[in-house]
Amino acid sequence: MDDARCDLAEGVVFEHAIPVRVYWEDTDAGGIVYHASHVRFFERGRTEFLRALGFAQADLAADGPGLLFAVRRLEIDYLKAAKLDDLITVTTSVCDIGGARLTMKQTLTRGDDVIATAVVIVVGITREGRARRIPDHVRTLFGHPPAPSEQADAAPPKA
Amino acid sequence: MDDARCDLAEGVVFEHAIPVRVYWEDTDAGGIVYHASHVRFFERGRTEFLRALGFAQADLAADGPGLLFAVRRLEIDYLKAAKLDDLITVTTSVCDIGGARLTMKQTLTRGDDVIATAVVIVVGITREGRARRIPDHVRTLFGHPPAPSEQADAAPPKA
Amino acid sequence: MDDARCDLAEGVVFEHAIPVRVYWEDTDAGGIVYHASHVRFFERGRTEFLRALGFAQADLAADGPGLLFAVRRLEIDYLKAAKLDDLITVTTSVCDIGGARLTMKQTLTRGDDVIATAVVIVVGITREGRARRIPDHVRTLFGHPPAPSEQADAAPPKA
Amino acid sequence: MDDARCDLAEGVVFEHAIPVRVYWEDTDAGGIVYHASHVRFFERGRTEFLRALGFAQADLAADGPGLLFAVRRLEIDYLKAAKLDDLITVTTSVCDIGGARLTMKQTLTRGDDVIATAVVIVVGITREGRARRIPDHVRTLFGHPPAPSEQADAAPPKA
Repeated sequence: MDDARCDLAEGVVFEHAIPVRVYWEDTDAGGIVYHASHVRFFERGRTEFLRALGFAQADLAADGPGLLFAVRRLEIDYLKAAKLDDLITVTTSVCDIGGARLTMKQTLTRGDDVIATAVVIVVGITREGRARRIPDHVRTLFGHPPAPSEQADAAPPKA
Repeated sequence: MDDARCDLAEGVVFEHAIPVRVYWEDTDAGGIVYHASHVRFFERGRTEFLRALGFAQADLAADGPGLLFAVRRLEIDYLKAAKLDDLITVTTSVCDIGGARLTMKQTLTRGDDVIATAVVIVVGITREGRARRIPDHVRTLFGHPPAPSEQADAAPPKA
Repeated sequence: MDDARCDLAEGVVFEHAIPVRVYWEDTDAGGIVYHASHVRFFERGRTEFLRALGFAQADLAADGPGLLFAVRRLEIDYLKAAKLDDLITVTTSVCDIGGARLTMKQTLTRGDDVIATAVVIVVGITREGRARRIPDHVRTLFGHPPAPSEQADAAPPKA
Repeated sequence: MDDARCDLAEGVVFEHAIPVRVYWEDTDAGGIVYHASHVRFFERGRTEFLRALGFAQADLAADGPGLLFAVRRLEIDYLKAAKLDDLITVTTSVCDIGGARLTMKQTLTRGDDVIATAVVIVVGITREGRARRIPDHVRTLFGHPPAPSEQADAAPPKA
């Protein structure tokens, strides 16, 4: 029940953006984008953010014990409706990096309209679902120094 | 950017539960339930909660200007992974009723395991997407008295 | 490009049916059920069909080299629209069993209305994606005798 | 139960292609792309095909009685598995145009690998779900002459 809100620090290194087109699959019978579709759009944004930093998640997951980023907490504010054929921008920034967790801030916008904002906490886990510290080379790419003595600070999901 | 957390009041009238089976469609290549699937499961819970109170959403949406419940804010804590073939229980309770908004608390459990918890704010809107007060007969069914003089207190999503 | 059509043989042992409720997640902005949702409903039907015969797919997948049923061919005829809140029946029958493939006939109905019909060919594969014969105890449960000398007759999907 | 197969005629005017990235949302616990995700990818291909010809479906749906393309029949052959992070190409061509129906051929490829092929019949319907002839200006854009005296030749889905 952590509070996931975050304000981007002054020194944020990187704000990443991708376009997402709204298709029929994303809408519902209310005529607008179904509220779980935003969750998928945000995940695409995080994946492309990682890819832009040089990480393919399939590779991270396959390497050694595996590094997967599991969502630990999600907060979304839905501000305006999105519709079929809309071209939306997903932005992603890292707010905070702990030993085993990343807090990210994301937005969905359509031109000047803010459709939704999110704060997402992800935790590093192995393929077996155990907590795994975020490796130093990942921390460094996110603009943060290595943190050799930190303890993993997040309880991961377990099956 | 409201804080949606809520503690169920002493006098909560109604806790509603449905079973949900996990199918292939709900999982991802990490071998567990994809984090947007929980959002769909919670929505099924809210829909069945309303149906148990006597409301079919298709009817509410078609009646007069229409009454739809749009998600305004969503907070989910993911605590344990769910897997293929799991039989999960979705519980739903109303924490709070304002003029045009409902705050609900929901859980996903598998036996004694809590898989995820959520606090969801929904707002009443018309088919055109305008804010609509929650009618008194709906308030009453939720165990709350009519609120004739209240203002709609939530800005609805707009396209 | 096999032709998947099949007529149920006289001696069909088992027609299996499950109910499926239509939720917001299943619909699109056309106001009806999105055409890929039918594909998910049919898959739930096949999974529950297997479960009714005593197979949990998570167990089949984990046992030895694993037995998964991968869809090799899908034909769907969409005959009537389904809508939010509809309660639909999914029926499933086996038409034909080869060495490594099952052909199944499925329908979605709402009362007397036939919403869609499907013919689905699935093939047995291992967790590694190799073709795997359908074991005799599975064949027997489907009402077919063991087929010890048959060759796997279907090219499986490969990555 | 029409047979939807088609061979592209010599004079096919237009083969359209879009890239699609595979995200976590598209995969399942078998480690590969879930078979209903292909159906969504094909739909994106058809939508972008129409957009490339100058049609936004939201506009077509809103104009006059509305023109929506409902899927009447779908045939998919699944040939190889697709995986997380794959970059896939969706191609779309029109095989045949009747009074109220279009038959389209589609493929999903990854480099030289053919992942799946589909033949899809769509029918023109109004927002109310009635059959609607495909207008001459649409026929012409698809490289076919107007067909003033043809009857609508497809029974549309009805609720």
